[in-house]
Amino acid sequence: MKNQVQLITYIDRLGKGDIRTLERVLSGPLKGLFGGIHMLPFFTPFDGADAGFDPSNHAQVDPRLGDWQDIKRLSGQAELMVDLIVNHVSSESPQFQDVLAKGEQSEFNKLFLTMSSVFPNGATEQQICNIYRPRPNLPWSMIKLADGSTRLFWTTFTAQQIDIDVESEQGQQYLLNILKEFHQAGISTIRLDATGYAIKRPDTSCFMIPETFDFIAQLTEQARALNIEVLVEIHSYYQTQIEIAAKVDRVYDFALPPLVLHTLFNKDAAPLLQWFNVSPRNCITVLDTHDGIGVIDVGADNGRSGLLAPQQIDDLVEQIHRHSNGESRLATGAAASNLDLYQVNCSFYDALGKNDQLYLIARAIQFFAPGIPQVYYQGLLAGKNDMELLATTKVGRDINRRYFSEQDIEAHIQQPVVQKLFELIRIRNEAPEFNGLFSFESTANHEFVLSWQLNDSTISLAVDLNQSQAIIFTAKNAEPSHDIWKI
Amino acid sequence: MKNQVQLITYIDRLGKGDIRTLERVLSGPLKGLFGGIHMLPFFTPFDGADAGFDPSNHAQVDPRLGDWQDIKRLSGQAELMVDLIVNHVSSESPQFQDVLAKGEQSEFNKLFLTMSSVFPNGATEQQICNIYRPRPNLPWSMIKLADGSTRLFWTTFTAQQIDIDVESEQGQQYLLNILKEFHQAGISTIRLDATGYAIKRPDTSCFMIPETFDFIAQLTEQARALNIEVLVEIHSYYQTQIEIAAKVDRVYDFALPPLVLHTLFNKDAAPLLQWFNVSPRNCITVLDTHDGIGVIDVGADNGRSGLLAPQQIDDLVEQIHRHSNGESRLATGAAASNLDLYQVNCSFYDALGKNDQLYLIARAIQFFAPGIPQVYYQGLLAGKNDMELLATTKVGRDINRRYFSEQDIEAHIQQPVVQKLFELIRIRNEAPEFNGLFSFESTANHEFVLSWQLNDSTISLAVDLNQSQAIIFTAKNAEPSHDIWKI
Repeated sequence: MKNQVQLITYIDRLGKGDIRTLERVLSGPLKGLFGGIHMLPFFTPFDGADAGFDPSNHAQVDPRLGDWQDIKRLSGQAELMVDLIVNHVSSESPQFQDVLAKGEQSEFNKLFLTMSSVFPNGATEQQICNIYRPRPNLPWSMIKLADGSTRLFWTTFTAQQIDIDVESEQGQQYLLNILKEFHQAGISTIRLDATGYAIKRPDTSCFMIPETFDFIAQLTEQARALNIEVLVEIHSYYQTQIEIAAKVDRVYDFALPPLVLHTLFNKDAAPLLQWFNVSPRNCITVLDTHDGIGVIDVGADNGRSGLLAPQQIDDLVEQIHRHSNGESRLATGAAASNLDLYQVNCSFYDALGKNDQLYLIARAIQFFAPGIPQVYYQGLLAGKNDMELLATTKVGRDINRRYFSEQDIEAHIQQPVVQKLFELIRIRNEAPEFNGLFSFESTANHEFVLSWQLNDSTISLAVDLNQSQAIIFTAKNAEPSHDIWKI
Repeated sequence: MKNQVQLITYIDRLGKGDIRTLERVLSGPLKGLFGGIHMLPFFTPFDGADAGFDPSNHAQVDPRLGDWQDIKRLSGQAELMVDLIVNHVSSESPQFQDVLAKGEQSEFNKLFLTMSSVFPNGATEQQICNIYRPRPNLPWSMIKLADGSTRLFWTTFTAQQIDIDVESEQGQQYLLNILKEFHQAGISTIRLDATGYAIKRPDTSCFMIPETFDFIAQLTEQARALNIEVLVEIHSYYQTQIEIAAKVDRVYDFALPPLVLHTLFNKDAAPLLQWFNVSPRNCITVLDTHDGIGVIDVGADNGRSGLLAPQQIDDLVEQIHRHSNGESRLATGAAASNLDLYQVNCSFYDALGKNDQLYLIARAIQFFAPGIPQVYYQGLLAGKNDMELLATTKVGRDINRRYFSEQDIEAHIQQPVVQKLFELIRIRNEAPEFNGLFSFESTANHEFVLSWQLNDSTISLAVDLNQSQAIIFTAKNAEPSHDIWKI
């Protein structure tokens, strides 16, 4: 994976078109900015109940967006990362429809998990409560087959997303087929979506258990054999995240966004720097994604303290709501039928009160943090909360999933904050020092310097939180330092 | 219960005010029309997640609407029917909040059902699938207590509605307290909401099992001791409905609305008349309610055929969608986050294509059918589908839950269809023959006569479906008949 800034984007929301439109945007107004692109799900259909994360045909590009040839062509311009949705398929998929029609006679019968696949003798209240749930409902749905019988299919997320048995022969074959498609289309990295839930065992949390690591290791081996790297998407306690990082190719640094917000809101870099002491180096950094801003990642876990104290997290959430003039409150929690209460829905730009200075400092910190930085398309354009889309769909996360036409993109790029961000991206892409060693120092909670050193050359970011100032400078041994970016 | 037409209404949607506003409407533009009123839930809060059916304080009138004195005063004008929500209380109730805070130490600990109250040794997939569910999810929610432990509370409907253990001492006391409040406020009938789900036993459907009948019998006894009648609300197979009717004070005739639609859509009265052969006489008739138009009540059940064939039901649903120009489709099923797929959301007036003639024939059939007729406030005013409210709330049933200001009411009453409906209501209220014996005759599928005879006097409704005509006439022995209403 190139050590350069990557873009996270939907195909249809950046340019309001198909793959060719996106290509035009990438080789036009966004030319030369990105070493890689994480393309959010574009499989058939890309606009299902969970915005592409519930494909009915995972091995096909949605024809409304293009085809595998288009993807292949795009892979010549930038490294491509795509989602491998390992945990489930749509209830509309031909495979599941076949099971509904034919029951045990279906060739796909073993592709899907039921409650009794895991609990053949039933489950007690305690066993069920042991299961880690992202939502307060149970992980099964009662679904009627054509013959009138009913089964409890395992549905970690929604009744429209049926969990597959990744340990069955059919499950293995299903995933391998998709991997091969990806390989042929020139995909260089897969992002394992919701993989923490893939393996279920009685009397466990059914989340990131030892068998899950074995499964990820095995899948990683298959992917590597096809020259594909693996990024694992998991939100969890920071120590768990560190343990996971040691066992897989790459993880996200999901602690970074709330820590950056805490740093800027409170002029207190101590928790951020404490995190840099231990944070995984094989990570992808983000401030914003298609999901909300996660807070679980800096929280406590069963009595073990987190990177922020509970009161600090509460304050953080309230400050986001305040800075966004209450918009994030409307998009978060029960207010927006959003059951992921551990995430706050808000554009990162609005979370910082649309303050250009603070926003650019946040990005500079991200780019100097260990890991490869990804920038979400709405954040790239300093896009504001989309209250109109939220009102239309009532999906909380749509506040940060704006549709930009090609004209909108041109207009947004003219903003000084975006121009300054582009400069920052170019610095991050071009300075060879980022391939060196990371270090930091701090004289006070409100002042700190992050540095990367390669041989005798250093690039540094100095932040003064009290003054809301940041300077990037380079230095060679025995030469005076040289400021190259400043806000 | 007076054998006269009753109104079903929300307090705040008919007049857009409180109990005093409704009183003004009832003694003004709607004066003298109703022998009774079913007032939809007005407890605290009346505007929760399930429009009043999830009170946190069931024993209190929501102060925004008035108080028990207001209800008492209203009971002097018409017989009042109110909902006793026996199955659950709001998760926001002080009782449930106390359990969350104190766990087993709470005095209300036994008020609420958990999975292990019913399945102490756990449940198998088969046992769980046996449970009759109105929705595809499981009947439990994982809820965390203050001490960090998790329990599976029984939640038949939503995680915001926690099922109570009506067999526990606390449960009994809870219901009795509400009954006493009702009695003091002059309530003459209670409607048992969702009572079919009240009793749970392993290896049963947990729906209308023998123990449920025992519970209803016991509750009915308590109510009668306070001079309160009991209406049981259950949607089910028509034979089951007949069996239930034999065991309780009163049931709804939920088969009537789809049968009337079938009759008018297809000029075929055969299924309707077949139903009148066996339909319970101790029933309340409706065409519209605050819920959708139920189709389960005329459907088949486990191989036993229903009052309409599956194809006839499919046609019926499609015809409603067509007559309402697709509006009902937008409000029904997954399209409107409405999980009650056995109901079609549409105003009854729109279901008949806003055809005044057909709408009045439908009401005439309802009023001549065995039972005491209720008219829902939106139907009373021939109110159209409220697409604006639907778009705002995305709650499918809101299509038929319009807010009418006092001005709106005055305006709607001017419509000829409403004037003609008022005439019909007065005939139904005043003709003594409706206290006599019911009979019907039919010479062809498209022609039939419904009659009521008391001593030597008869009132009849003759319908000609081919001509879309209906005539009401009275006759005394040896005298020529006399037309009193005609469309």
